[in-house]
Amino acid sequence: MYLGKVIGTVVATRKDENLIGSKLMITQPLNMELEPIGEPLIAVDTVGAGIGELVIFTKGTAARIAARKMDAPIDISIVGIVDQLTIDHWDSRDGS
Amino acid sequence: MYLGKVIGTVVATRKDENLIGSKLMITQPLNMELEPIGEPLIAVDTVGAGIGELVIFTKGTAARIAARKMDAPIDISIVGIVDQLTIDHWDSRDGS
Amino acid sequence: MYLGKVIGTVVATRKDENLIGSKLMITQPLNMELEPIGEPLIAVDTVGAGIGELVIFTKGTAARIAARKMDAPIDISIVGIVDQLTIDHWDSRDGS
Amino acid sequence: MYLGKVIGTVVATRKDENLIGSKLMITQPLNMELEPIGEPLIAVDTVGAGIGELVIFTKGTAARIAARKMDAPIDISIVGIVDQLTIDHWDSRDGS
Amino acid sequence: MYLGKVIGTVVATRKDENLIGSKLMITQPLNMELEPIGEPLIAVDTVGAGIGELVIFTKGTAARIAARKMDAPIDISIVGIVDQLTIDHWDSRDGS
Repeated sequence: MYLGKVIGTVVATRKDENLIGSKLMITQPLNMELEPIGEPLIAVDTVGAGIGELVIFTKGTAARIAARKMDAPIDISIVGIVDQLTIDHWDSRDGS
Repeated sequence: MYLGKVIGTVVATRKDENLIGSKLMITQPLNMELEPIGEPLIAVDTVGAGIGELVIFTKGTAARIAARKMDAPIDISIVGIVDQLTIDHWDSRDGS
Repeated sequence: MYLGKVIGTVVATRKDENLIGSKLMITQPLNMELEPIGEPLIAVDTVGAGIGELVIFTKGTAARIAARKMDAPIDISIVGIVDQLTIDHWDSRDGS
Repeated sequence: MYLGKVIGTVVATRKDENLIGSKLMITQPLNMELEPIGEPLIAVDTVGAGIGELVIFTKGTAARIAARKMDAPIDISIVGIVDQLTIDHWDSRDGS
Repeated sequence: MYLGKVIGTVVATRKDENLIGSKLMITQPLNMELEPIGEPLIAVDTVGAGIGELVIFTKGTAARIAARKMDAPIDISIVGIVDQLTIDHWDSRDGS
């Protein structure tokens, strides 16, 4: 899964009917310093995430599993809201 | 899902027979400022998208689900036409 | 799907037996100006594509669907030969 | 599969209920010189990996297989702890 | 599929039990001039590839198909050993 922040929403009236009822959130991928990496994506919210929240998102079939909509054309979903990130080992080359 | 704009069409007479009847649209991925990111892709239109329209597209198995053609070799489909993008939080490091 | 050009072939005598009979074509991904983007891939031909032809290729499960070989370890296939590319909207920010 | 190092953990109280009980480890992808490549990911631990350990991780459906949770929205899992890396051929253009 | 060269091996004693018996080969992706592109990956050998050999590898579900282990967390496998690469069309913009 990936770290991101919900930064906005998308409204699409004409869309696949299996997307009706799914909230489409613009989600900015972040690194572990909470800096943006790459461009924002459009993710289906499955956990009640609000604007500005730090979230975990998932891609591919996992996104449809999260949405409990295996027949919807969903490939990215928000699956958790982050309470805490703990980094212990920044330097990958130190001992253990 | 991803944001894009339909910028053209592809005609292929010799092709997988399960692609017959699918409209192949050249789709330019965009960022949330509507600037091009990366190279255009070839997406199957499933929502009646026209040239110049701002769309949502999906990848992988989700693309076949959108096309209602699980036996077609489709890996990218247009699944919605964007009415409105609302961005509330550009700065990922501001408070809430 | 993606645009590419067939630029060569690969011969592999020792290989997965479910690849026997599949023609392995070296395929250069192209942008819509027909310029190379990224490195060539190895795609299974499913439409009788010849060297030098402009093709559409697909990735993942879609590639096995195209090959009608769901039990073969195929992840990229050529699914169409391009007759015509029509680009109408290069500037993603013009009005439409 | 990919090489990585476990560098931290993520706590998410509000999350997909099928993620309950899965340990979410912040995992830094590494190259074969054990240098960081790209940004850290959030992987489900399936082998009892600890902070600082060198691990093998997998993506997509393989990640759900590793977790023995096909109905969980998991797309990255840790599947092994590395004891030894042996590199014999750095130069790809030498003879044999 | 992708071109690569087997450059080493990985030993992991603690691992997913469905990986037991799978040989984990460090595989360097190559371009068609046999130059390294990107970082080495960890692929399951399914064709008896040796160190230094030029191979074809595949990703995703195709990798489990190659390994005949649909319940193993495998996402990259070696599926062929290259005998010959023939490039006929380097310039993507020449005529034919």
